[in-house]
Amino acid sequence: MADPRWDIVGIGNAIVDVLAHANDDFIFRQGMTKGAMNLIDAGRAELLYEALGPAVEQSGGSMANTVAGLASLGGRAAYIGKVAKDQLGDIFAHDLKSAGIYFPTARLVGGAPTARSFIVITPDGQRTMNTYLGACVALTPEDVHADTVAGGRILYLEGYLWDPPAAKQAFLKAARIAHQAKRLVALSLSDAFCVARHHDSFLDLVHNHVDILFANEAEITALYRTKSFEEALKVVRGLGKTAALTRSEKGSVVLNGDEVHVIQAAPVDKVVDTTGAGDLYASGFLYGLTHNLGLKRAGEIASIAAAEVISHVGPRPQVRLADLIKERAA
Amino acid sequence: MADPRWDIVGIGNAIVDVLAHANDDFIFRQGMTKGAMNLIDAGRAELLYEALGPAVEQSGGSMANTVAGLASLGGRAAYIGKVAKDQLGDIFAHDLKSAGIYFPTARLVGGAPTARSFIVITPDGQRTMNTYLGACVALTPEDVHADTVAGGRILYLEGYLWDPPAAKQAFLKAARIAHQAKRLVALSLSDAFCVARHHDSFLDLVHNHVDILFANEAEITALYRTKSFEEALKVVRGLGKTAALTRSEKGSVVLNGDEVHVIQAAPVDKVVDTTGAGDLYASGFLYGLTHNLGLKRAGEIASIAAAEVISHVGPRPQVRLADLIKERAA
Repeated sequence: MADPRWDIVGIGNAIVDVLAHANDDFIFRQGMTKGAMNLIDAGRAELLYEALGPAVEQSGGSMANTVAGLASLGGRAAYIGKVAKDQLGDIFAHDLKSAGIYFPTARLVGGAPTARSFIVITPDGQRTMNTYLGACVALTPEDVHADTVAGGRILYLEGYLWDPPAAKQAFLKAARIAHQAKRLVALSLSDAFCVARHHDSFLDLVHNHVDILFANEAEITALYRTKSFEEALKVVRGLGKTAALTRSEKGSVVLNGDEVHVIQAAPVDKVVDTTGAGDLYASGFLYGLTHNLGLKRAGEIASIAAAEVISHVGPRPQVRLADLIKERAA
Repeated sequence: MADPRWDIVGIGNAIVDVLAHANDDFIFRQGMTKGAMNLIDAGRAELLYEALGPAVEQSGGSMANTVAGLASLGGRAAYIGKVAKDQLGDIFAHDLKSAGIYFPTARLVGGAPTARSFIVITPDGQRTMNTYLGACVALTPEDVHADTVAGGRILYLEGYLWDPPAAKQAFLKAARIAHQAKRLVALSLSDAFCVARHHDSFLDLVHNHVDILFANEAEITALYRTKSFEEALKVVRGLGKTAALTRSEKGSVVLNGDEVHVIQAAPVDKVVDTTGAGDLYASGFLYGLTHNLGLKRAGEIASIAAAEVISHVGPRPQVRLADLIKERAA
């Protein structure tokens, strides 16, 4: 088996974010679930955009944010995800390719436009997402090339992929290829409501197909239907897998079977926008793992990357994370 | 004459900004003039975008930034400018309309796409703009409706409009309508190189058609071909018009014939990105004038608005400026 070309091969919903500020009352009046990823259709997307204030656009998508963060740390990544041949698709593709990320997925022509997520940032820095999947529903197993997947040290999949039906098959095909090539498979549970929508499938995935698990407190307690984080943690420890469980300002717990480290959240002057926090945490953790820095150091890098992205509007780093990590170590 | 419906009617090049960080070496290698607005064609736009790193998109355009800032201060504005019927045009139109700005200009169909400006932010916070005018070249006198222009207390024109040839005629038509309706006409000189390109026309405009003049130090010394700011200021004082002359961190001078006030720059923790500084200064100054707050207070509000916009990436305010002004006054 040749050395992997990439540290990570990521598959995800390819989305451009539309970020705007609003208060809790707006969230309530629009019937959104605060802090969650709400799926919306094209008609609702139009109405919501009309109701939304002035916005900023930036490439997003959970997995794409993670590979962008990995690249900013100095890692190498490939990304599989579907955008349309339109201006938002141009933006999405540019932002990956200009970061040095291999992005071979064919554009969708004559179908739905590039996906967008209307992200409402409330005064507490929380983000509430409203995602119109658009071209993402056209991602199919044909977009998963065996040589790309086998070329990555770790295949990383986002739970959100379970929402567009054809993407599920792409997801399972990729996991099969990765394991045949003796690569590791990582999964993010993505969102507590996403876990609820696909609960049994996710349990099967985690137990039978996944080597490295990412989840936040709400997601892991939703998966194991436990009352507390501590109970869920006990179950995860019993799996004997690598896992990173995040708890917002309470930091995170990283573990590999019996090796467990509690990691403090890195300090932030002011939480401006939590969009991308979990995604950038994953960038840092996977950078650490693929560069053999040890579990604890991987968790620390993860915390620093997450702290950077919540200090400004938007889900992608605004500084070179490799420089930031060097500064913090000095 | 009916009371004006709007404080300001603005006409400008309608542009979406593509903002990215790079160092001075990139500016040099790409042959850009640092700090200036460089005009580029479609082919160059494509090549430049390929060379540029990951970016953030936000509605821009000097005049559109100014009316957005005015709306954020609580003022009322209309805007005339040309975008295409495409995704970037949707973004531009949304960001104006959702701020409560009247934007009646018909979209361009079947022509060039919506204009974009590739803005390179260097580590010193300076911005260097590279503008592909796209649909802006299709703004013509037909887009200037007499009832819109006559409905504004002040007609505000940007010097950049002198670049697309047909827009010049729209500009002159609007100035004629405004004066016939006994409205005031304001002009921004926009950019020192823009002044150099259209020097004699700009002199004629300032002396014969303009009541309120905005210029920064480089622009006003380019217009009057003086060696120092002080010499240029003397010439401007002799015009007997209202003027606001900005000097970056040295603050600004606001005057009306013999009434002259030196205004300090409002404090900023860190200059992140100067994009929109002059535009937001104009928002504040025109808000003050149209709300009869006096020349000095108008200059102070202008400084606070400019300070907000340079404290983050992008040319539009990230907080409600009306609240910010209230806080500062308290």
